[in-house]
Amino acid sequence: MKVVIVGGVAGGATAAARLRRLDEKAQIVVLERTGYVSYANCGLPYYIGGVIEEKGELTLQTPESLHRRFDIDVRVKQEVTKINTEKKTVSVKDLQTGRDYEESYDKLILSPGARPSVPDLPGVDSRYLFTLRTVEDTLKIRQYALEHKDGSAVIIGGGFIGLEMAENLLGLGMNVTVIGRSRQIMSNLDYDMAVLVHALLRRKGIRLILERKVEGFEEEGNAVKVLLSGSMQAGAEKIPADMVILAAGVVPETALAKEAGIELGQKGSIVVNDRMETSVPDIYAVGDAVQVKHLVSGKDAVISLAGPANKQGRIAADNICGIDSHYKGSQGSFVIKLFQMTAAGTGLNEKSAKAAGLSYEKVILSPSSHAGYYPGAKVMTMKILFERGTGRILGAQIVGQEGVDKRIDVLATAISLGACADQLKDLDLSYAPPYSSAKDPVNMAGFVIDNLLSGRIKQFHWEQIPALLKKQDITLVDARTKVEYDRGHIEGFINIPVDELRKKMKVLDPSRPIYVMCQSGIRSYIACCILSGCGYDCYNFSGGYRFYEAVTKEKQLSEETWPCGMDR
Amino acid sequence: MKVVIVGGVAGGATAAARLRRLDEKAQIVVLERTGYVSYANCGLPYYIGGVIEEKGELTLQTPESLHRRFDIDVRVKQEVTKINTEKKTVSVKDLQTGRDYEESYDKLILSPGARPSVPDLPGVDSRYLFTLRTVEDTLKIRQYALEHKDGSAVIIGGGFIGLEMAENLLGLGMNVTVIGRSRQIMSNLDYDMAVLVHALLRRKGIRLILERKVEGFEEEGNAVKVLLSGSMQAGAEKIPADMVILAAGVVPETALAKEAGIELGQKGSIVVNDRMETSVPDIYAVGDAVQVKHLVSGKDAVISLAGPANKQGRIAADNICGIDSHYKGSQGSFVIKLFQMTAAGTGLNEKSAKAAGLSYEKVILSPSSHAGYYPGAKVMTMKILFERGTGRILGAQIVGQEGVDKRIDVLATAISLGACADQLKDLDLSYAPPYSSAKDPVNMAGFVIDNLLSGRIKQFHWEQIPALLKKQDITLVDARTKVEYDRGHIEGFINIPVDELRKKMKVLDPSRPIYVMCQSGIRSYIACCILSGCGYDCYNFSGGYRFYEAVTKEKQLSEETWPCGMDR
Repeated sequence: MKVVIVGGVAGGATAAARLRRLDEKAQIVVLERTGYVSYANCGLPYYIGGVIEEKGELTLQTPESLHRRFDIDVRVKQEVTKINTEKKTVSVKDLQTGRDYEESYDKLILSPGARPSVPDLPGVDSRYLFTLRTVEDTLKIRQYALEHKDGSAVIIGGGFIGLEMAENLLGLGMNVTVIGRSRQIMSNLDYDMAVLVHALLRRKGIRLILERKVEGFEEEGNAVKVLLSGSMQAGAEKIPADMVILAAGVVPETALAKEAGIELGQKGSIVVNDRMETSVPDIYAVGDAVQVKHLVSGKDAVISLAGPANKQGRIAADNICGIDSHYKGSQGSFVIKLFQMTAAGTGLNEKSAKAAGLSYEKVILSPSSHAGYYPGAKVMTMKILFERGTGRILGAQIVGQEGVDKRIDVLATAISLGACADQLKDLDLSYAPPYSSAKDPVNMAGFVIDNLLSGRIKQFHWEQIPALLKKQDITLVDARTKVEYDRGHIEGFINIPVDELRKKMKVLDPSRPIYVMCQSGIRSYIACCILSGCGYDCYNFSGGYRFYEAVTKEKQLSEETWPCGMDR
Repeated sequence: MKVVIVGGVAGGATAAARLRRLDEKAQIVVLERTGYVSYANCGLPYYIGGVIEEKGELTLQTPESLHRRFDIDVRVKQEVTKINTEKKTVSVKDLQTGRDYEESYDKLILSPGARPSVPDLPGVDSRYLFTLRTVEDTLKIRQYALEHKDGSAVIIGGGFIGLEMAENLLGLGMNVTVIGRSRQIMSNLDYDMAVLVHALLRRKGIRLILERKVEGFEEEGNAVKVLLSGSMQAGAEKIPADMVILAAGVVPETALAKEAGIELGQKGSIVVNDRMETSVPDIYAVGDAVQVKHLVSGKDAVISLAGPANKQGRIAADNICGIDSHYKGSQGSFVIKLFQMTAAGTGLNEKSAKAAGLSYEKVILSPSSHAGYYPGAKVMTMKILFERGTGRILGAQIVGQEGVDKRIDVLATAISLGACADQLKDLDLSYAPPYSSAKDPVNMAGFVIDNLLSGRIKQFHWEQIPALLKKQDITLVDARTKVEYDRGHIEGFINIPVDELRKKMKVLDPSRPIYVMCQSGIRSYIACCILSGCGYDCYNFSGGYRFYEAVTKEKQLSEETWPCGMDR
């Protein structure tokens, strides 16, 4: 059996190694367009920033090392120009010699990846514009950035690569601007969580320009100007820069597949079944170029992440070797480090849940990374979505520092195994003061959801505040201490500290629903219990004033913890 | 309704607060024997060591604060001396005034906890012997240790408290010896994992004396001598110490329950159903004193951990308030920080799986905490048990540094949700280079288990090596490089580096089974694939020479990572 693999990174490289492990006799040919295979593509921004110091760390696998260990025929700088599905061959151009040749296959695996999206704008071919995909791109950007350390960089796009580049170029000493088209960066997060990242970036000295459209680029001397359209808030503008990184999304690299008549789906991605087979017999596809099922929504999706690519490569190899192996779908779990912050998510967010037509409820918590009495605990902001009726967990987003990746992975596991949100309360997670609390943040979320699902508590959210402030027949209560209230509150909320509520309750009109807020949501929950127990109709504010202020004023959140689940 | 709660820490305090939140009108009385309630019991060793600097951090909740917020009648220094089940009262002695009184209840919750086990040995009442359970104990030990900073401490028992005390007293400057009765500390770990902790403790300068029995204590001047029995290896011995900490396990504090005729189970623990009801109507029990169902084995167990205690407190309160709430069982998830090391586990280990009569298989891996090319990655040692036949995950143990707690919690979640071990390979976990690899350690374990369950790979373990070395009709192969082999190997294994195996294979007798070892298990796996593909019957060594050396020579493991899943 002869297997040809187009693309030697992530999915392609994994498939090649798995094929060999399953079949010592197969002939395996990997054709890679760039000069490098199996490189650390998620590490590229960190090499540019010097966090990863050696180029060798990125490019540990070579055609020689793969040949030595796996007896794989790895050929770099080979571009596949055509798939001849009838003849079962691919046409290849050797980019070093210019020679064209054909390579036959019994099975073909396409792992072409996705390329940075380059908008069709005036001046987009300027030599000061860069995209980041390959090792070659990386070396070029690093070289250029090192020569312009004191200069400025504009990054177009606020996704993973854009933000990692922003941090790394800032780290080199550059002046960095990030430009985004919508009102938020990181489309994987909901607006109210992305805002927490906005605040961090701005505090770190990154200029963030949102809701503005790039209209073109103008070279001037040894630099370039980014032309921005005007908006309601600002006039048209030209942002000067020594370099521009185009990082406004990626598009599946599927011209070859399209030309071969392979069925394409969303965004031009390759349609595959759960065995990674395309519409054409004996042709498989994996990685950023394929369309997957979203594990939670069940809908088709294009998800460009390394984890799924690697899993898919293994599954394609399994099926080629006669093992009945199925890809279960992606849930889009992600994590990103930005300075000391960690932002992560899994499953659906509000936007994608709405798009999938799901009816959801959400909770927002501010738990500590570990026991407050043990040094170094940090508060994280955790948002969990669950389905109305079934209680199925739909997704989670967390922004914070220590322990964010842990809780997202626990939640990803729960989602993957189809857990109901109130099962989170029962999870027997490991606890010692340096790592967690006896009630882990994930348990806490389960407790809150359990109270909601059983109808013991009702809640309201930041988006509802403007409408509530206009209502006449309700009472708005702020249950924090007077000191906290005086430091900042929403006009219209009256201050009754939770510890005085039993005494002062009589001032509250029992015929009116009461909406209660505190700093993080714990004291207002207790206040709601007290009031409900006395016959009041109560609503608890999810996330607390802390979250409200962060979202509406883009205020940097305090990371200070408060002890023992009792905030001040 | 009037609820009396005996014991105001963990389970008792949680039950009290939950009761109030569910019932604003109930009368809630908490009777606590010590002077403190709801204190940070898991933080006590860290206060002694000065890691937690303020006593106030441990004792944030006071009777006053609980009364203010929850309207709970909290009484400290009140000892319940008798439960009068017919009259539905408890007899109480006020330890401050000496006054005796009765308190009636509608519902009673027992949260008495467990007390340090004190052996009946000569000299055990010496004033230089200490146990650690309460805030009072903590203050006494801290005071004494500070006065003897340059002195020596002997800790009897190598469980959580014993080891945390060892680290903290060493941190104060004391000379520390830990004495254990069996051949290993940390009975929650299997021997081969505990050995990794032994090596760390010894390297840190802690004297570890194992498999020796303490026979008594002798005061001499201002110090004490610990009398040790002789053993095969050593004669009887007297270890001098300025202080001795007795931390050799705990026993459920259930004399009161016993006297009241409540049914007791293992180790004298209180038998409860999954609603936390005891055998006597209207009496509930929670926390370290109760017998639980082990979630994995289904057997009765006594598990003294804070997480379960807190969950049980909530469940008892729920049921008292008419909410149908059930405790699902404990899986004994734990984590401990020792210096820079993290050791953690969940579910069953080999000992408990055997005791439960389960037929299991195990895998041992050495994955990186995060991508090897991103700075700071550390190798962890991961052991996972799964059931033969069903593939159900039974338990996991991990020893390492960064990311150990995360993987244990992911595995705890998978176990709790009844996952089959090969489902671990499909988990869509979050990945970025600072946090994980595209194939997370948990995924890697799933891949290995998938290969085992499908019969594609067979393995052998370190315990089998002595027997294998005596066999004549097999071939033992070490697939590492010559440099690694020369640095240390098992006599009897011949060296054929994996990358030369295809060329040199002909020297191997195809009629003999081949047992292959490498450094971590990855190259030997590849070697097995090559050999199997050529018709050989192969066995892969689980854990690699790295693990073998650590277990058999108690060698400190290198934490250095090797890149891209390709070890040297």
